[in-house]
Amino acid sequence: MEKENFKPDGFNEILDELLNDIAPSKEEEMELKEFSEKIITELYAEIDSKKLRSLIEDIIQVGSTDRNTNLKNDYDIDIFIRFKKDVKKEMLKETVLKIGKKVIEKLDGKCWIEYAEHPYLSAKIGKYDIDIVPCYKLNWGENIISAVDRTPLHNEFLKKMLKKNNLNNDVRLLKKFLKGIGIYGSDLKTKGFSGYLCELLTIHYGGFINTLLGAQKWKIGEKIILKEIFDIYNLDHDYKFADFKDSLVVYDPVDLNRNVAAALNKENFCKFIFYSHQFLKNPSKDFFYNYYKKINENLNNRKEKGKLITLGIKRKDIVDDVIYPQMEKLQKSINKILIENNFEFLRCGYYADDNMCYLSWEFLVWELPNVKLKIGPPVFNKEGVDNFIKKNNKYFVKDCNVCAYTTRNYKNIYEVFEDIRKGKLKKKITYPKYVSPENAIIFNGLYFHDYQLK
Amino acid sequence: MEKENFKPDGFNEILDELLNDIAPSKEEEMELKEFSEKIITELYAEIDSKKLRSLIEDIIQVGSTDRNTNLKNDYDIDIFIRFKKDVKKEMLKETVLKIGKKVIEKLDGKCWIEYAEHPYLSAKIGKYDIDIVPCYKLNWGENIISAVDRTPLHNEFLKKMLKKNNLNNDVRLLKKFLKGIGIYGSDLKTKGFSGYLCELLTIHYGGFINTLLGAQKWKIGEKIILKEIFDIYNLDHDYKFADFKDSLVVYDPVDLNRNVAAALNKENFCKFIFYSHQFLKNPSKDFFYNYYKKINENLNNRKEKGKLITLGIKRKDIVDDVIYPQMEKLQKSINKILIENNFEFLRCGYYADDNMCYLSWEFLVWELPNVKLKIGPPVFNKEGVDNFIKKNNKYFVKDCNVCAYTTRNYKNIYEVFEDIRKGKLKKKITYPKYVSPENAIIFNGLYFHDYQLK
Repeated sequence: MEKENFKPDGFNEILDELLNDIAPSKEEEMELKEFSEKIITELYAEIDSKKLRSLIEDIIQVGSTDRNTNLKNDYDIDIFIRFKKDVKKEMLKETVLKIGKKVIEKLDGKCWIEYAEHPYLSAKIGKYDIDIVPCYKLNWGENIISAVDRTPLHNEFLKKMLKKNNLNNDVRLLKKFLKGIGIYGSDLKTKGFSGYLCELLTIHYGGFINTLLGAQKWKIGEKIILKEIFDIYNLDHDYKFADFKDSLVVYDPVDLNRNVAAALNKENFCKFIFYSHQFLKNPSKDFFYNYYKKINENLNNRKEKGKLITLGIKRKDIVDDVIYPQMEKLQKSINKILIENNFEFLRCGYYADDNMCYLSWEFLVWELPNVKLKIGPPVFNKEGVDNFIKKNNKYFVKDCNVCAYTTRNYKNIYEVFEDIRKGKLKKKITYPKYVSPENAIIFNGLYFHDYQLK
Repeated sequence: MEKENFKPDGFNEILDELLNDIAPSKEEEMELKEFSEKIITELYAEIDSKKLRSLIEDIIQVGSTDRNTNLKNDYDIDIFIRFKKDVKKEMLKETVLKIGKKVIEKLDGKCWIEYAEHPYLSAKIGKYDIDIVPCYKLNWGENIISAVDRTPLHNEFLKKMLKKNNLNNDVRLLKKFLKGIGIYGSDLKTKGFSGYLCELLTIHYGGFINTLLGAQKWKIGEKIILKEIFDIYNLDHDYKFADFKDSLVVYDPVDLNRNVAAALNKENFCKFIFYSHQFLKNPSKDFFYNYYKKINENLNNRKEKGKLITLGIKRKDIVDDVIYPQMEKLQKSINKILIENNFEFLRCGYYADDNMCYLSWEFLVWELPNVKLKIGPPVFNKEGVDNFIKKNNKYFVKDCNVCAYTTRNYKNIYEVFEDIRKGKLKKKITYPKYVSPENAIIFNGLYFHDYQLK
């Protein structure tokens, strides 16, 4: 091992206790392994019986359960059926859905079709959640044909590296830590760290604590290149890597033109640095267990507050990855109106449960007099001045501009939200397809305490 | 005449009516001339009787009444006693006070001593206000010994130029126009155009309307060099003049290192451009008669207003030129506190009558919740972060900074003003010598309508 997996005093006990709680038992591990092998065996048998063996390279298990980096009670099994490169895409889909369905039913499971870039089969057998995904078998450095073709290569690389340095439990600690502070997941709701990113970071820094220590030196736009990349692709050390504008850039060993940390937003990048620092200074298991909820509760349970207003919108039957970006878009659009009308908020945020979308604001200024200052053109712009005073009769010169007092459109935020829910601001606000504020409910207060306003 | 004194259609009638009203009658002019000549004759007689003739070069009348650029009912007579350059300053003072007093008393007037850079005699005889000022007689281009030495040269230059181009009444129109829009006077209360500046501009542009038209092309930092300057000093046209940072630069023909428009502030510079443009578009006598009061009334009599608060401070027996800068300083200092505490105002201003100083504000935001957002250091600054969270327990990460909610010092502006009048903010506010807000009275409303808030 090149890097010592650093665990300073005071951490060992905590980390051991944590692992005891979060790592699956050997029995669990074995059981899962046996079950996924059984599925693979059945898939091969079905393929042979259908005489489709010639289309297929192999059937493999991938994912964190295969790599021993999953957390306890994670029963996800990912099976990839890898086809030969000359097989048509249509054929991949058809084969997997047919063969898969047969096998799942044979094992007394239920299954349905899911769609990512191309369809795959999702199934439930007992406590296990199974995905059976078709892809092409690629060699290192080959261009992908479908988006999921990278996954088996990721799996291969990680397995080798994690085993070599015995880092499986370190990945688990990092994942759990990120979960605790609410930034685990690269989905559009979380915009945090993906599992794959956790594994690469753990490999790069050589352990969990080392990763946290490493992050203390990060700056915005931090670039991380695993040294293995130079060996794999036989690159010089002055090789010019692709340029990314993200807060954190981690080059994918499987595809150097891909930033594994692209989904991570700047705030979550900063949160990781901040809470890592807190944890390193004051090691405690607290950080690993819903710590973000405690932070939010601490913030929400302030004695002194601004005015809290929540817009409640009935949720359509649409997934988080669509709903959350639309909520964000709507809130940004409403924020513009609020700022335009001089209503100042301390923080805002959004959250969706199964039935409703909630957009909340904490206001610092929610009532204003009816007067508004309009700043016109500089006195040097004669045409602009003439037009301005034609429209505004309470004008005067302030500094170098002609200004005027006019009547404000909204005296308090309720009037703004009333107009929004009545659809009167459609010209100024983007009403997203699935999160329309028309007929929304206006609540006083936060309504929920487990989402973060910022 | 090189420049035509341009008076477009629609202006002649207005300007003639105005002149009828504002220019002194021929009788008035004659009467004043005779009276000032009488004073000069008496001064010579007294000097001769005291055998002081050898100290003195001459005694002359200067000022707008001498140049025929004064407005009606302006009975100011400025007499300058010009001494030989080898006479000691002490002697100037002594002689003028002694001789002057004698003459004034002989003419049944009252007199007293005034102090500018050096003392002079001020007097009242009937309706006339007389200043008798000692100075040295200089030739063109010679360095001044005392500040007032320039005045006789100014007078000589202006008289010649105004007479040559028959511009006396144009100066009167410009002065009255500037009075009307409230920016006539180079004192620290007004920060506008001096009489001398009006005369130079009228000469430079060749008339009143031409000056207004000329101003329409002004930009911040406008530089005006009278062409006569090149002749007087025999300068090349690429001569490098002194650099001034003022909004308007008008080189003094008597001293090229002096900007005659130094006292004019940017806002008044812009007001001149703005109201000139208005007048040229819609010629009306209204502009010449307390137009600024109508503007202020129009602004103050809005139906919709913010919260108006006035701080009333007992006035010490101190001149405007001292009181006004101190009021300005105090208001700026209080504004800083208001902004720091997130109270937003639309406009503010100050005004003093004989008994009181008034500082007023029109507030847009005058009440706030008790919570305050404190923005701490970026998460990259570990030491800063550690210090910040030691002091603030409701912390969180926002964008790249650690932030916290704390309790606001002031929930409304009355609390701020209460602390100011109790002297509790002495560390944060500059309490000027003569305008101390301690024990000030806090009024609701504007209290006065004839001063401008901006």
